[in-house]
Amino acid sequence: MNVILASTSTLFGGNYLEYLTNELVTLFKGTDEIIFIPFARPGGISHEEYTKKASDFFETLNIKVKGLHEFQNPVEAINHAKGYFTGGGNTFLLVKTLHELGLMEVLSNNIKQGKAYLGCSAGSNIGGINMKTTNDMPIVYPSSFDCMGLVPFNLNPHYLDPNPDLKHNGETRETRINEFLTQNNIKVVGLREGNWIRISGNNITTEGSEETRIFEPGKAPYELQPGASLV
Amino acid sequence: MNVILASTSTLFGGNYLEYLTNELVTLFKGTDEIIFIPFARPGGISHEEYTKKASDFFETLNIKVKGLHEFQNPVEAINHAKGYFTGGGNTFLLVKTLHELGLMEVLSNNIKQGKAYLGCSAGSNIGGINMKTTNDMPIVYPSSFDCMGLVPFNLNPHYLDPNPDLKHNGETRETRINEFLTQNNIKVVGLREGNWIRISGNNITTEGSEETRIFEPGKAPYELQPGASLV
Repeated sequence: MNVILASTSTLFGGNYLEYLTNELVTLFKGTDEIIFIPFARPGGISHEEYTKKASDFFETLNIKVKGLHEFQNPVEAINHAKGYFTGGGNTFLLVKTLHELGLMEVLSNNIKQGKAYLGCSAGSNIGGINMKTTNDMPIVYPSSFDCMGLVPFNLNPHYLDPNPDLKHNGETRETRINEFLTQNNIKVVGLREGNWIRISGNNITTEGSEETRIFEPGKAPYELQPGASLV
Repeated sequence: MNVILASTSTLFGGNYLEYLTNELVTLFKGTDEIIFIPFARPGGISHEEYTKKASDFFETLNIKVKGLHEFQNPVEAINHAKGYFTGGGNTFLLVKTLHELGLMEVLSNNIKQGKAYLGCSAGSNIGGINMKTTNDMPIVYPSSFDCMGLVPFNLNPHYLDPNPDLKHNGETRETRINEFLTQNNIKVVGLREGNWIRISGNNITTEGSEETRIFEPGKAPYELQPGASLV
């Protein structure tokens, strides 16, 4: 496989996808056109607006972007495409739409056959076993929480360390993931902003500027250095 | 109806339910025993431990607490009870369990007939139309997101204002609720820590130390003062 699952599309103070530019040149080498999956609709923006945003960035890499919503037959479009990018936004809306259109397995099969895939945030969540470790609000009811399972674990994008100064009794991210572990026997990779998971052939590594926090049932959470293997 | 739906059980630096003591004396006046619904299991604690926590507080008000998990027939237990308290934790786990046991409608019917109800956090979410505005992680898959509809709107407990200093690109609470409004024609009440909704007869008011932020489709969000009507 040839995959990047990134915590975020945009670093604080940076431009859209800018920090990943070099990685994306490698990921999409030899590809002049990709399909953008805009279904997560961050902030409720339209499929058209969102595709324009992705397209504007990929133009700088001489890669043409087509929005999946533009196709009459999205299954055929996925099967014919050379590579994919799924943008962030709301994971529930993304997963619901992919299941409704019968695309989750189709996309997964194409990626497992070696086609390049970039996911950011919600688009990374769907690379995991299921979406049960998303941070998003359940604004719609998907027919299933199952995802593509490109990796043998779940992801928590935008992983945030507890803030000891916060006078607020909402759960910390770590508390939420520990609650997940009481109900599921699945490893969770907490991806801090600036980090991504790289699948290259049979290798799965954690990459980026930060350490990556790993949660496993019955173990204390621990940190992995950039470049560490995740399998 | 006679209901309190609180943002949180515990204020920063305070003890469990302490800030609500006077309100709870009024809510449960004439009631010497209530049923505690421990299914949300915050941090994964057991039903027994969680019920003990609730029981320890209500002992100070001379109210006996029985955990719903102790009953062979929970439907009968709900129908025979004099009042209810649903504790916070994970809303997905709470809603899944209530639907599995066929309790959502039974509980709702009893409360609509006038029996006292206290909800905190996840226990407040289930007082709304559905759970699509919870902050919790979807660690399990409920058979439905529908809730009791004690109020004609949804709640967002632990409502948190955007922090302009945060160098993190996860969505703000306001962004998430606005995404909800693109998909649902339902008013959302953002309950800051220290606030609660009071249903007393036909009146629904917002109470507590803070303003309450209201989100409606097609309108700018606005604030309500403590004591303002929500119907």
